Amino acid sequence: MELKIKLLTWSAGLPVAMFNEKTASKMGVHTKDRVSIKTLSNPPKELSTIIDTIKGLVGENEIAVSSELKKILNLKIGQKVDVELAPTPKSMVFIKKKLNKKALSEKEINEIIKDIVNNSLSEPEIALFISAMYEQHMTMKETIYLIKAILKSGNKLTLNHKPIIDKHSIGGVAGNRTTPIIVSICATAGLMMPKTSSKAITSAAGTVDVIETIADIEFSIKELKKIVKKTDACMVWGGALGMVPADSKIIKIEKILKIDPEAQLLASIMSKKLAVGSKYILIDIPCGETAKINKSKAQGLKRKFEKLGKYFHKKLKVVLTDGSQPIGNGIGPALELVDVLKVLDLKEKSPKDLEKKSLFLAGELLEMTSKAKKGKGIEMAKEILYSGKAFKKFKQIIKAQNGQLKDIAPAKFKKNILSKKSGKIYEIDNKKINSLARIAGCPVDKFSGLYLYFHVGDKVKKREKLLTIYSESRTRLKHAVEFYEKEKPVKM
Amino acid sequence: MELKIKLLTWSAGLPVAMFNEKTASKMGVHTKDRVSIKTLSNPPKELSTIIDTIKGLVGENEIAVSSELKKILNLKIGQKVDVELAPTPKSMVFIKKKLNKKALSEKEINEIIKDIVNNSLSEPEIALFISAMYEQHMTMKETIYLIKAILKSGNKLTLNHKPIIDKHSIGGVAGNRTTPIIVSICATAGLMMPKTSSKAITSAAGTVDVIETIADIEFSIKELKKIVKKTDACMVWGGALGMVPADSKIIKIEKILKIDPEAQLLASIMSKKLAVGSKYILIDIPCGETAKINKSKAQGLKRKFEKLGKYFHKKLKVVLTDGSQPIGNGIGPALELVDVLKVLDLKEKSPKDLEKKSLFLAGELLEMTSKAKKGKGIEMAKEILYSGKAFKKFKQIIKAQNGQLKDIAPAKFKKNILSKKSGKIYEIDNKKINSLARIAGCPVDKFSGLYLYFHVGDKVKKREKLLTIYSESRTRLKHAVEFYEKEKPVKM
Repeated sequence: MELKIKLLTWSAGLPVAMFNEKTASKMGVHTKDRVSIKTLSNPPKELSTIIDTIKGLVGENEIAVSSELKKILNLKIGQKVDVELAPTPKSMVFIKKKLNKKALSEKEINEIIKDIVNNSLSEPEIALFISAMYEQHMTMKETIYLIKAILKSGNKLTLNHKPIIDKHSIGGVAGNRTTPIIVSICATAGLMMPKTSSKAITSAAGTVDVIETIADIEFSIKELKKIVKKTDACMVWGGALGMVPADSKIIKIEKILKIDPEAQLLASIMSKKLAVGSKYILIDIPCGETAKINKSKAQGLKRKFEKLGKYFHKKLKVVLTDGSQPIGNGIGPALELVDVLKVLDLKEKSPKDLEKKSLFLAGELLEMTSKAKKGKGIEMAKEILYSGKAFKKFKQIIKAQNGQLKDIAPAKFKKNILSKKSGKIYEIDNKKINSLARIAGCPVDKFSGLYLYFHVGDKVKKREKLLTIYSESRTRLKHAVEFYEKEKPVKM
Repeated sequence: MELKIKLLTWSAGLPVAMFNEKTASKMGVHTKDRVSIKTLSNPPKELSTIIDTIKGLVGENEIAVSSELKKILNLKIGQKVDVELAPTPKSMVFIKKKLNKKALSEKEINEIIKDIVNNSLSEPEIALFISAMYEQHMTMKETIYLIKAILKSGNKLTLNHKPIIDKHSIGGVAGNRTTPIIVSICATAGLMMPKTSSKAITSAAGTVDVIETIADIEFSIKELKKIVKKTDACMVWGGALGMVPADSKIIKIEKILKIDPEAQLLASIMSKKLAVGSKYILIDIPCGETAKINKSKAQGLKRKFEKLGKYFHKKLKVVLTDGSQPIGNGIGPALELVDVLKVLDLKEKSPKDLEKKSLFLAGELLEMTSKAKKGKGIEMAKEILYSGKAFKKFKQIIKAQNGQLKDIAPAKFKKNILSKKSGKIYEIDNKKINSLARIAGCPVDKFSGLYLYFHVGDKVKKREKLLTIYSESRTRLKHAVEFYEKEKPVKM
């Protein structure tokens, strides 16, 4: 049936659409049914969507689309599209197969990923797929299929220059914002590092959440190439590039569920690295009781990454690092940026733990690519950082991404948390610190978050400030303080 | 923040609400966040909901609510409510605990059920709970907690009369519409049978979907009591009674996912039986390769039901019946009603398999309650049916539910499926027949569905009609025919 596009400038987080009740009845569409929307252009663009029904407001010859849907199909108001009831996607059969502990074939995984990209699977259905991966695990074979399927679903970056390097830290450690520093050092050293990242899933911020506070992070592949040509690097959001659209969609639901199955974690990281054509890949797995991964799991994950590296013919190295407590002082997009700037600008009061870890990882990359001799990577990284060249490179990248450095003021509501006694801190729980920052508004409210005044091992006096919580909303701040009182993320 | 209710007469299948973008930003609410809506009445009614944001359309001092939300909170347009950002529900922690293979305590299960009823859990989150139950299973203890929690979440029916009986058939066998016949026979025999049912989850129709074609199925508890007082029976939708609101909510998501975990199946059935105060409970488990349950699983399920019966001090009997193929000729709400009416009205061409199974189950109930002597139940049931009294009783119940018998014309579009060869039918796949009927529009489109001309063992000539597919929508009919051609539910 031909219908006209109506826009309600309505954002549901995912692409959805609405019919007038009568249109629905005429087409035999029920609330929560799936329809396919096809443009009349040649070739047509097509996407599925779940239908809500509404009385009035939307005309009988209209279909109201959410902002997300309008954007994906590049729709114009009043534009005619062909709308048809869509059958239940076949991939649901395969999701249930996995749920019933059976391994999936390459074809079956392709089908699932295709339906996720097409928007043919609804939120609860994608949740079921994530849950199936979480509970039944995927074999190495299935993980490889998943990576290939995700890769196939999107665009690729082709750069025919210097050796391309990439790094990835498994999330979970609050404040672990080494990437901007590593990128700046390595690009200065003559390596090419087109860094694309996902937004934070379970933590307070990811690299792009941080960079977004002062620069753009959404670019087309063409724009990206220009940035990388100019600066040898970038720090952009992978989601916007359409390199791994399936991954972005899955991550959206993972954010709601706050779970991140291992196969999807492997696939998410590897597909992004492969999409930008990296030859050298460094994987940082911080381990610790309150990190995402403990030591014994980290060993297993390391082996899996190494197998994938071999399979895809990449020079891939995995390092296990200390993830026992947060790194730096700021937690949250803007507050972490402040830490990064202090390190790059060689300020006296910069967070030394963040500097040390960044130099170590940059050093590893310099050695892997033979820019530095074995055992001399850290030294070279330090030299570049301390020369001020890394900071210059950082500013160049930010400028290329339409940004500029500026003073950063944290969110308007704040609460200082004071120590109730004097003593020595013996634990700062990463998971709880991340939850606390998220309750305060991270990563969406860029200037919200926490400032930690101490680390594990430090001595604290009674009534001394332990941390400050910043939030853009009084209610969020209240919830955060309540969470703090109940969960006690800092133990002494 | 105080906001005014705006109604968009918009049905999203579940309660959801919309903010103006500016209101969202003022409150620090992001798309897909949860808010709580509290009425200003005394005592206040409260419900959580997920927020979509929209530009314009909804005023800055307004909150637009879906029809579902308006109904639950009994909201009026323009009414002021107190809206606040709600914290992530604690129950997500417990759902993940189950996902991680740990048993849940009574308190934890109560919390999950409370959050489901409050609407605090979103669709993907409920999907995760269903998936956790499906994959990790629940112990008998957890199942009992679940039953109690579901029961506690709703209203109870108190009838202080004759012994109350109830029956339940595990779904999965297409066309298995014995309940209306059993209810009519047993109520005639002097037993009280206040039958409440869920709507179909994975099959083409449930008892209430069938009854809804000629009578009302949504009543308040007060109205229900009146009906039962008048007729000793009823056939109504449990969802409308608010007896097991948690169950209704879970079932809504199960319908999307098309899975039905065993603990939830047990809890759904038992909670409904307990809510109506039944003393005698008959559980029918049809088994067969293409039924919901095969023979060996049925034995396990039987033992669990028996344990639950003992725990809750009920006389509970489980019978395993033949579920190897569909029962009767019609599949779908209206088409199954036609079969039921043929049996009750003693028509010559009535489906004998449906009659036989109904008499067997009615007989069991008559024996359990000592209305009939051991071994004489079927005889007594037959006598009542053949006397015409059961049909009279059925008409009395339908009348009490504001209905009346009428001629039933199937849906407007139809397609006859002809046999491509002559031979003997050796399989009719229940699952595929149910899927076929659902693709045609069942259970929402009451007059859609299938008419089967044959059963397993019958001989068919080339080009003879095997079945007719009926649908209200040309597209659905097309999809159904395509499904038939591909899946071949009838084998010969």
